[in-house]
Amino acid sequence: MIEDKNQQRTPLSELGEFALIEHLTKQFNIKHTSTVKGIGDDAAILNFEDNKIVVTTDLLIENVHFDLSYMPLKHLGYKAIMVNLSDVYAMNATATQITVSVAVSNRFPLEALEDLYAGIETAASLYNIDLIGGDTTSSTTGLLISVTAIGEVDGNDEVYRSGAKPNDLLVVSGDLGAAYMGLQVLEREKEVYKVNPNNQPDLEPYTYIIERQLKPEARKDIVKLLKDLEVKPTSMIDISDGLSSEILHICRQSEVGCDLYEEKIPLDPQVITVCEEFNIDSTTVALNGGEDYELLFTISPEDYPKIKANPSLTVIGHMVDNSMGVHLVTRVGSKIPLKAQGWKNFTS
Amino acid sequence: MIEDKNQQRTPLSELGEFALIEHLTKQFNIKHTSTVKGIGDDAAILNFEDNKIVVTTDLLIENVHFDLSYMPLKHLGYKAIMVNLSDVYAMNATATQITVSVAVSNRFPLEALEDLYAGIETAASLYNIDLIGGDTTSSTTGLLISVTAIGEVDGNDEVYRSGAKPNDLLVVSGDLGAAYMGLQVLEREKEVYKVNPNNQPDLEPYTYIIERQLKPEARKDIVKLLKDLEVKPTSMIDISDGLSSEILHICRQSEVGCDLYEEKIPLDPQVITVCEEFNIDSTTVALNGGEDYELLFTISPEDYPKIKANPSLTVIGHMVDNSMGVHLVTRVGSKIPLKAQGWKNFTS
Repeated sequence: MIEDKNQQRTPLSELGEFALIEHLTKQFNIKHTSTVKGIGDDAAILNFEDNKIVVTTDLLIENVHFDLSYMPLKHLGYKAIMVNLSDVYAMNATATQITVSVAVSNRFPLEALEDLYAGIETAASLYNIDLIGGDTTSSTTGLLISVTAIGEVDGNDEVYRSGAKPNDLLVVSGDLGAAYMGLQVLEREKEVYKVNPNNQPDLEPYTYIIERQLKPEARKDIVKLLKDLEVKPTSMIDISDGLSSEILHICRQSEVGCDLYEEKIPLDPQVITVCEEFNIDSTTVALNGGEDYELLFTISPEDYPKIKANPSLTVIGHMVDNSMGVHLVTRVGSKIPLKAQGWKNFTS
Repeated sequence: MIEDKNQQRTPLSELGEFALIEHLTKQFNIKHTSTVKGIGDDAAILNFEDNKIVVTTDLLIENVHFDLSYMPLKHLGYKAIMVNLSDVYAMNATATQITVSVAVSNRFPLEALEDLYAGIETAASLYNIDLIGGDTTSSTTGLLISVTAIGEVDGNDEVYRSGAKPNDLLVVSGDLGAAYMGLQVLEREKEVYKVNPNNQPDLEPYTYIIERQLKPEARKDIVKLLKDLEVKPTSMIDISDGLSSEILHICRQSEVGCDLYEEKIPLDPQVITVCEEFNIDSTTVALNGGEDYELLFTISPEDYPKIKANPSLTVIGHMVDNSMGVHLVTRVGSKIPLKAQGWKNFTS
């Protein structure tokens, strides 16, 4: 589906490991004074003075987490960073450094890795992140990327999943379900392509949802917005596995229940249209789709006036006593217990 | 070769991701006050107060970095941690936390992952490390492990590769070449086993070198010893790719030359015997074998009296002016330029 514009193919065996790392990382700049020493020694040295630090890591594996038949390598590099930064922002922290380890089989030429690192560099540049280390090696089959992201927290600004209280409002950034529907469109076009490689798909009606799948953005802006509004969430999590699963994490760790209002769930019009086209219920998609990388958080009711006018934030429910359970309140007013259906990687 | 004593096979699909991580990590304890929050949120929170931190990461991939036909999973878990801690110690730092990401195909039952994590837990316990995060996912083929290790440095104790000066002494801990010869023995026994699976190999003469391959130890003790002796190395690196490659790193980054004395290179008697058996030159093995995980460092000549009596440390050469180059001085006194032959993973 994606045309290979890059005709040059330099085998990785032409470079050694150190030359390869040097080549791939030479365009990266160090931006933070907390990065005392980046790439080039046994380990990086960081100095956050008296700030606390945040550490998170994620692994992306070909044909499990991504499909290179429709995921350009540059986008993949970008997305691998976003997935990790999203976890840093979910702690109400500032992301500052990343390490990136990549394993590739010999079917990837140097130019493919250059594309991957171009995406990583774009992300690092836009989100003001230093690349401070990593590992580059061969794999026996596909491509895999392991990223560790590091951030810092001022004072006691960190926000856990565990601080929600009954009566707190449940708030989500952006809109939900688009990344999942983007994936459905890409999977469908892949099948069409298999049957007829000459078919030129018209992806114009799907631009937003495809972009949400291929090039998600971590919500750095929301962490800043909350700071500007002087709102410290009582709990926070990022939406990687679907709204349902994340609400259940907050409820379990905060020992509260929740009423989530179906009619409040923010959906982009394109998601609604494409859900109709695919004959899928849009609420189900928002609840279980995943990969939205929006922030889900709870705030004290007193903070409501500060956030209510903001178009990036939607109140979608409120927390209740633990004994009352976790429910979706449907458009017709009935209550359905919420279940997580997110992660199915190990399903045989 | 290694008998599968573990007859029970619980498919990973019986557990979800979160239940799996909980199950595998429940026996890990938090030991450091710097670990404010470990596993269980979007990210870990660490607090090193005003200490600098050290970050390093390494990726281990089945059939590239290890062969499960002779590497027990428990040992693999242990070794994956050692490889990373070794890099932390090479900065003259104290290792404090790790994240561990694992991808496995469905051919691995839960019991296999339990063995892997038992090895990780043993390492974490012996080396006083907190497991603070990670990712567990499925892979399309083999097993891979990505570890990030974090450490802390008191004051300005960190040591880079770049501080060596002419006349500094070159010092190595332990002995060299054993892990490589252990691998040769294991590879040979694997071939024998393929031909005759009933053959019971007598590995008694190879216990030391096999242990060095299957269960290396990172030299935490050397960092402590140097502190006790009040010696701060001028440069340091760990030996993962072979002595030759590591000396060249120090020389290039410190802008110095080096005379390395062949007769001084510490070799275990078992390495010498097995090198004769395999008809391999033991110096070549020490120079290019790799996986020793010993520390290589330079010290100021004034510090020589402090270290000379120590059986764990051997002076193997001295640094010279950059213009004089990097040489091996052979037993007969001739000088041979040193070349790196370490890393060949991408050789097609």
